[in-house]
Amino acid sequence: MRATAWSTALSAAMLVALAASAPSAAEAPRPRTMQEVLDASKPSDWRPLDPAHTLYMDLAAGRVVIELAPAFAPLHAANIETLARAHYWDGLAILRVQDDFVAQWGDPEAEHADKRRPLGEARATLPPEFTRTAAGLPFTRLPDGDVYAPEVGFSDGFPAARDPRSGEAWLAHCYSMVGAGRDNDVQSGPGTELYAVIGQAPRQLDRNIAVVGRVVQGMELLAALPRGGGALGFYEQPRQRVPILRVRLAADVPAPQRTNLEVLRTDTATFAALVESRRNRRDDWYKVPAGRIGLCNVPIPVRAAPSR
Amino acid sequence: MRATAWSTALSAAMLVALAASAPSAAEAPRPRTMQEVLDASKPSDWRPLDPAHTLYMDLAAGRVVIELAPAFAPLHAANIETLARAHYWDGLAILRVQDDFVAQWGDPEAEHADKRRPLGEARATLPPEFTRTAAGLPFTRLPDGDVYAPEVGFSDGFPAARDPRSGEAWLAHCYSMVGAGRDNDVQSGPGTELYAVIGQAPRQLDRNIAVVGRVVQGMELLAALPRGGGALGFYEQPRQRVPILRVRLAADVPAPQRTNLEVLRTDTATFAALVESRRNRRDDWYKVPAGRIGLCNVPIPVRAAPSR
Repeated sequence: MRATAWSTALSAAMLVALAASAPSAAEAPRPRTMQEVLDASKPSDWRPLDPAHTLYMDLAAGRVVIELAPAFAPLHAANIETLARAHYWDGLAILRVQDDFVAQWGDPEAEHADKRRPLGEARATLPPEFTRTAAGLPFTRLPDGDVYAPEVGFSDGFPAARDPRSGEAWLAHCYSMVGAGRDNDVQSGPGTELYAVIGQAPRQLDRNIAVVGRVVQGMELLAALPRGGGALGFYEQPRQRVPILRVRLAADVPAPQRTNLEVLRTDTATFAALVESRRNRRDDWYKVPAGRIGLCNVPIPVRAAPSR
Repeated sequence: MRATAWSTALSAAMLVALAASAPSAAEAPRPRTMQEVLDASKPSDWRPLDPAHTLYMDLAAGRVVIELAPAFAPLHAANIETLARAHYWDGLAILRVQDDFVAQWGDPEAEHADKRRPLGEARATLPPEFTRTAAGLPFTRLPDGDVYAPEVGFSDGFPAARDPRSGEAWLAHCYSMVGAGRDNDVQSGPGTELYAVIGQAPRQLDRNIAVVGRVVQGMELLAALPRGGGALGFYEQPRQRVPILRVRLAADVPAPQRTNLEVLRTDTATFAALVESRRNRRDDWYKVPAGRIGLCNVPIPVRAAPSR
């Protein structure tokens, strides 16, 4: 847990051993660290974010980049995109930060019909998109099981779960996942109020709410916010709220102001090697490799897109 | 995910139904919310923190209260108590805050033999206390399995795991757990440098490091700190570090300045009911109860000790 603890330094003896074992690598791949896996990745292992489905939430402290998940919540993604195009969130705020749970943003006056911001062309209610059919969905399954779901893995860069019996799939509430807050009515969460997970994965929310995407950059801007002192972590005073400067679709932002990112494809051999590198840590610090990994412990690497 | 989402309101019809079912409660206990379980708890369901094994870390923003776990790491707990009695941490700092991982504190000059703070009567190295024998350990097992360990549950208020084959038990790296940072040498973590988990449980650390306790109050003071910009979340500039005013054993603090807390006993019927209330949420918001719960999703309630 010191600086040296996480180095990937290899001793000379180990390097010799690795070189010697290279010819039989196909049968018994030598263990690699995550950094070695990423360093050996090919350009085709990465995919750019789609500007049509990427949100920028600009705060005074910096930009939060959210990749939307229209494959899981198409109506919500479309409604959120409509809201972003109408500049719905500009001047609204982060209202709630509950420790070990969520940061949540939206209209402070949402409960007051006479004061709340109009939704314009966006819809005020939406059918629940809490699960979808698993058929046709890419799914890279993890090998080590899960407490909450029969199967877990990754679907096009998002942590997901599925149930072979019901034929359903859903996004999992891991750290940095974004959902559409709702009231008790399942149709009451049209995406106007969004939250990001900032603590231990609250997987009990799975299948109860529309998960709409993932924060791929800027999580620390949300996770390090002061916790709210009110019930459920709501800020008690309006001045405590964190103003949102603007939320934009990346496609609507001029190219020079875009944050161009790539996500590691989760259906590649490189990602499989990354998962293995995290199931069994191979640096000098770890003495007992776990040999297993939980869904929400697998990093989904993001990097700046190479300039062209 | 709004204020109403987490209410425990019961409809009149439900109250009637509950009253009607009361006589057969022993056979089929009616579902209760966590708040109802806690409201019905008895004084004997709670135990006070032991002042001899409780640390106060006072920051400018407030107090972090840590319950040590001598049952799992007796040498580390004793060494930490020796360090606290010597006021070792006074004027040292939080050095590292890595998003979704840990906040870590200690001596910024620990690597410089000529500048670092002397340890006094405390030991500079300790044998690893990464696991212990499971024999003789109280253990309230959870029913829903775990990705990382054969069995998980709670031992006297701490999340723990055990392996019937090896006969070993260990504390689990859930949110708010505190460990003793070390270098690659397994004896290099004597408790001078401590960390608390501030994100998704890094269970791969289990059995690789001495877990020494749990933050029972003040987690938000650590989890909301700015993340460090350096490698591994270390602060790059000394001025960014968060000063520690003092660390004291509760037993060494005059009674009026103590933070008197009680922890719900985890070997009680009340705790079992609490676990069940979290496996299957019963408020109006949840539509699909998970029916299961992960080790690090179970809250371990703490409350102010009633005045006597």
